[in-house]
Amino acid sequence: MQPSRLTWLCLLALISLAVAPFIPPAGSAQSPPTPATSGSGASADKALIDDLVIADHILAEQGVLDAFGHVSVRHPGNPQRFLMSRSLAPALVNADDIMEYDLDGNAVDPKGRASFLERFIHAEIYRARADVNAIVHSHAPAVIAFGTTQTPLRPITLVAAFLSPRVPVFEIRRVAGMSNMLVSNPQLGRALAETLGANSVALMRGHGMVVAAPTLPLAVYRAVYTTIDAKLETDAISLGGPVTFLEPEEAETANKTLDQIHLRAWELWKRQAQANMCK
Amino acid sequence: MQPSRLTWLCLLALISLAVAPFIPPAGSAQSPPTPATSGSGASADKALIDDLVIADHILAEQGVLDAFGHVSVRHPGNPQRFLMSRSLAPALVNADDIMEYDLDGNAVDPKGRASFLERFIHAEIYRARADVNAIVHSHAPAVIAFGTTQTPLRPITLVAAFLSPRVPVFEIRRVAGMSNMLVSNPQLGRALAETLGANSVALMRGHGMVVAAPTLPLAVYRAVYTTIDAKLETDAISLGGPVTFLEPEEAETANKTLDQIHLRAWELWKRQAQANMCK
Amino acid sequence: MQPSRLTWLCLLALISLAVAPFIPPAGSAQSPPTPATSGSGASADKALIDDLVIADHILAEQGVLDAFGHVSVRHPGNPQRFLMSRSLAPALVNADDIMEYDLDGNAVDPKGRASFLERFIHAEIYRARADVNAIVHSHAPAVIAFGTTQTPLRPITLVAAFLSPRVPVFEIRRVAGMSNMLVSNPQLGRALAETLGANSVALMRGHGMVVAAPTLPLAVYRAVYTTIDAKLETDAISLGGPVTFLEPEEAETANKTLDQIHLRAWELWKRQAQANMCK
Amino acid sequence: MQPSRLTWLCLLALISLAVAPFIPPAGSAQSPPTPATSGSGASADKALIDDLVIADHILAEQGVLDAFGHVSVRHPGNPQRFLMSRSLAPALVNADDIMEYDLDGNAVDPKGRASFLERFIHAEIYRARADVNAIVHSHAPAVIAFGTTQTPLRPITLVAAFLSPRVPVFEIRRVAGMSNMLVSNPQLGRALAETLGANSVALMRGHGMVVAAPTLPLAVYRAVYTTIDAKLETDAISLGGPVTFLEPEEAETANKTLDQIHLRAWELWKRQAQANMCK
Repeated sequence: MQPSRLTWLCLLALISLAVAPFIPPAGSAQSPPTPATSGSGASADKALIDDLVIADHILAEQGVLDAFGHVSVRHPGNPQRFLMSRSLAPALVNADDIMEYDLDGNAVDPKGRASFLERFIHAEIYRARADVNAIVHSHAPAVIAFGTTQTPLRPITLVAAFLSPRVPVFEIRRVAGMSNMLVSNPQLGRALAETLGANSVALMRGHGMVVAAPTLPLAVYRAVYTTIDAKLETDAISLGGPVTFLEPEEAETANKTLDQIHLRAWELWKRQAQANMCK
Repeated sequence: MQPSRLTWLCLLALISLAVAPFIPPAGSAQSPPTPATSGSGASADKALIDDLVIADHILAEQGVLDAFGHVSVRHPGNPQRFLMSRSLAPALVNADDIMEYDLDGNAVDPKGRASFLERFIHAEIYRARADVNAIVHSHAPAVIAFGTTQTPLRPITLVAAFLSPRVPVFEIRRVAGMSNMLVSNPQLGRALAETLGANSVALMRGHGMVVAAPTLPLAVYRAVYTTIDAKLETDAISLGGPVTFLEPEEAETANKTLDQIHLRAWELWKRQAQANMCK
Repeated sequence: MQPSRLTWLCLLALISLAVAPFIPPAGSAQSPPTPATSGSGASADKALIDDLVIADHILAEQGVLDAFGHVSVRHPGNPQRFLMSRSLAPALVNADDIMEYDLDGNAVDPKGRASFLERFIHAEIYRARADVNAIVHSHAPAVIAFGTTQTPLRPITLVAAFLSPRVPVFEIRRVAGMSNMLVSNPQLGRALAETLGANSVALMRGHGMVVAAPTLPLAVYRAVYTTIDAKLETDAISLGGPVTFLEPEEAETANKTLDQIHLRAWELWKRQAQANMCK
Repeated sequence: MQPSRLTWLCLLALISLAVAPFIPPAGSAQSPPTPATSGSGASADKALIDDLVIADHILAEQGVLDAFGHVSVRHPGNPQRFLMSRSLAPALVNADDIMEYDLDGNAVDPKGRASFLERFIHAEIYRARADVNAIVHSHAPAVIAFGTTQTPLRPITLVAAFLSPRVPVFEIRRVAGMSNMLVSNPQLGRALAETLGANSVALMRGHGMVVAAPTLPLAVYRAVYTTIDAKLETDAISLGGPVTFLEPEEAETANKTLDQIHLRAWELWKRQAQANMCK
C-alpha cells in the first residue's frame, strides 16, 4: 500500500502547485523555515513526524544512510520517549512507519511493526544526555576508514566545527568481545553513550557513527557535514605535509555560528527531499 | 520492440498507481518482501524471472554491472539448470531475455538468442556448490585494483562480514597462459570454482569478481557491499597506519545477522529499480 | 510562495517549447549566447538578474556551492553597487531574492530580507579591483584540502590557466586571531582582498575560496574549473613523481583563449540549469 | 531555435513510443544494433549523422566530454572528408550542427557555423591513419594526471586491452614551445599524429587525450574505458605494491574479443542517450 499513500501525497502536492499561482502572495519576503522541534502536544507531533520522515529522506539522498542506519527525535511532550521509524530503509519511510519508544528501547504501540535491532543506541544516549533531542546512526562510508585506523577525525573546515574538541571511537570489542558488532542491548547502548560523552559525534569501529544534537535539523546537518569533513581530511592527508585543523577556540566560536546558519541547509534539503518524494 | 514492452509495463504500473488510492488498505503493517527463490513450478518461475530482471537492473543502478557482467539464479525446480539473460547489457534486460541453461553451459531453448561467452562461470560454480543458488559476475572498478596488487580484500565493515575468512584471487594465467582472459569454457569455469572454494567472493585478476550466495537477494547484497568494502579499504590504506579488520569470529557472528537484514536493502533497491524502469 | 513563481516560470517555458516549432527559424546558424554583463539601465538589469539566478543554480549543480556560498555581480549602471541574493541556499534562489548592496555591504532596499554574513567579501573586492565585475565565494570540498596544507594549488590543465601565476591562501588567524573564521566585516574583507591581490582565485584556509572575474560567465567558469584542477592535482600527487604544471608563459597564452571559449561552457550549463529549474 | 528542433524530436519519439504497442512484434529475438559506419551514400549519411550526434551525447553522459572536446567520423563515401559538430558543447549537439571537413581542416559548407580550433587533431590523424574512421578528443579528468607525471597509463583490465602496447604522451612544448597548448594548426596536428603512431590512444600533457578507432562505436567505447582504466590504475597505485598489468600477448588476444563485444556497450549507451535527449 506504499504507492497509494505516496500517490495521494503527490497528487495533493501537484494540485497545490497548480493552484498556487491563483493565491495572492502574502508579501515580498518569503516565510522563514519553521523550527522543527519547538512544538509540543498533538498538532506539534504531526509536524514533528513529518520532519522526521523528511530527515530520513534527506539523509538517504545525502548518502549518509543507505538501506541501514536510522534517525530519531525525542518526544517533545515526554522526554522519556523518542520517535523512530520501524525497521525499514530510510528512503522508504512514511509517517505511518514512525513508532514511539521508551528509554528502555520498548516500542509503545508496535501494531506488529518490527523494530531496529540497534534502537538502544538512541534510548541510552537520550537517557544520558538531557541536551540531546535528535540522534542519527549511520554507516556512511566516508567515516568508517577513520574508525578503523589510528588517524583521528578532526574539524578541517569551519562548517564541521562541531567535531571539536574530539571525535571518540567506540571499540565494541572492549565491552562485547567477539560479537556481531551491533549495539543490540541496553548495556552496549550505555557503553556507546559513555564513549560519546559530551561530544557531538562518536565513530564506531568497522561500523559507522552516531551523531547527537539538540534539534532534528542540527542532527541532520552534523551527520552530513561529518561525512564531508572526513572526505576533506582524507584528501588533505593524501596531499602530504602537515594539515592545519581548527583550533579548539576557533571551533567553539564557529560552532555558535553554525547553530544559527544550519537551517539554510535544512531548508534546501527539505525542499529537495519533498520534490523527490513526488517523483 | 524493446520500447513497446517497456511502454506496456509502464502504462500498467502507472494505472496501478492511479487506481491504488481507491483500493482499501489491507492493514497498517506493510506486507513483508517475498523471498525470491523459495518457490518452484511454473508460477514460481514467473516471480523468479521477474526478480532476476530486477536483480539485473539493481546491479546496474548500484554500479556493480556496467554494459558487461551478468547475474544468474539456479532453477528452483531443477538444480541442474540455471536462469540468466541473453547476451545484453543488464540495464536493458526484460523477462523475454531470460534463458535457461544446463550445467554444461548449453542453452535449453535459445530461440536465436545469443549467450554470454562466460556462462561457464555460473555453470561450474552451480555444479561445485550445492549451497549456491545465485551468482553475480561483475567488472566493478572498485574491486579490480585489489585483484591486481598484493593487497588482500578483507572485511573492514560488519556489513561486509561475508568476505571472511578470505577473498581468493583467480589468476587465469596459471591455467590458460596468455589468453583473452575470459572464462569461456568449462575447464576455466572449473578452475575458477576451485579458486572460489567455499568462499562467497573471488576476485579475478584484471577482470573483476564472482559472487555466490544461497539466494538471489543475498547475491545482489553481497555484490554491492563487496564494492563498498573495497572502497573503504582503499580509503583506510590511504589514511596510513594499521587497519583494524573484522576478526574471523566477529565476521562469522555478524554474517548470521546479515542473512536476516539484507532483505531491507533488497526491498529498497527493488523499489528504486521498479521506479526507474518506468522512467 | 516559491512554488507559485516556479510554476509560472515552468508553464511559460513549457508553452514556449510547445509553440516554438510553429515559429519560422531565423536562419541556419543559431544565435550566439548573449554576453551577460554588457548591458546597463533597467532592461539590462532584468537580464542580468536572470543570469545571476542562473549562475546560482549552475554553481549548485556543478557542486561548487552547497547550502552555503554565494555569487554576486557588479551593477552595470553603478560600479559602487553589486547584486547578490538574500541569505538563502543558491539552488533555491529566484529573481525576487536578488538584493542590491553598496560597497560598505549595506543593503539598499532589504524589504525585510536577510543578508549573508560574508557580503563584505564581495564589497571589498569590488572596491579594490575595478577590473572585477563578478565574484564567487564557495566551500567546494575539492579546494579546501589545498588551503589547509603546504601544497600550493597550481594550473595542471590548460582550462585552468587562470590559476597562474599563483593561488594565494588567506589565513584569517593572521588578522582575526581565534575567530569564527567568517569574513563578516569590512576589515576582514579588505584583508582578504589584499591576499587576493591581482589574482583570479584565493583559497581561504579551512573555509573555501573566492573567485573573481571581469564577467559573470567567466567567474562561474573559473569557479568550476578551479575545483576540477584541484581534483586533478590531488590525483597527480597520488600517482607519485614530479608533476608538470603549466609554465607561466603557457598559462598567460592559454588564458587568453579561455577568455574566448568559456562561453561554450556557460551556454551548456545555462541550458542544463534552465531545464532543471522546471523539473 | 534549439528547443524547437529538440521538441520535434521528442514529440516524434513519444508518439513512436505510444504507437509501438500496436505494432505487431517482428519476433522474439530483438534486432541487433546496426553497425554505425558501414553505409555509404546519402541515406547512410543520415544514419551516420544520427549516430555521431548520439556519440556526442554518450560521451557527455559518460563524463568523457564536458563543455569541451569533440568526436568525429570519417565520411564513408569520401575518405578525404570527415564529419564533426560545429563549435558547441557536445551535450547540445543536434543533426543540424554536424559539419563536413576536408583533411586540411577546412569546412566544406560552413553556413556561418563556427569550427573547433582543434579540428586539425582529426584532420591529420585521418590523413596519417587509413585504418582510423572515428576520433575522440577529450579533457577527461581521469587521464590528465597520467599525462603530467612520469607514470605511464597501462591496461590493468581486459576491457581496456586496446591500451596495449603503450599510451604515448604528446608534449606540445617540444614542437610549439610556450604556446596556448591547443592543437590549432596542421603542423601541430601532424606532430600529434606522429606521437600517436599506430596506437589507439595518446595522452596530451596538461590537456587530455585523443582516441582513434576503425568505427565510431569502437572510438566511443575506447574513450570511455580509457577513463575507467586510468581510475583503476590510480586506485591500484594508492594500494601500494606492484601492479599486474596485462601482458602484451594477453592484451592482443583480449583486444580481438573487444572488437566483438563493444557493441553491447554501444547499444546500452545509445538507448540511455536517446532517453535522456527527450527529457
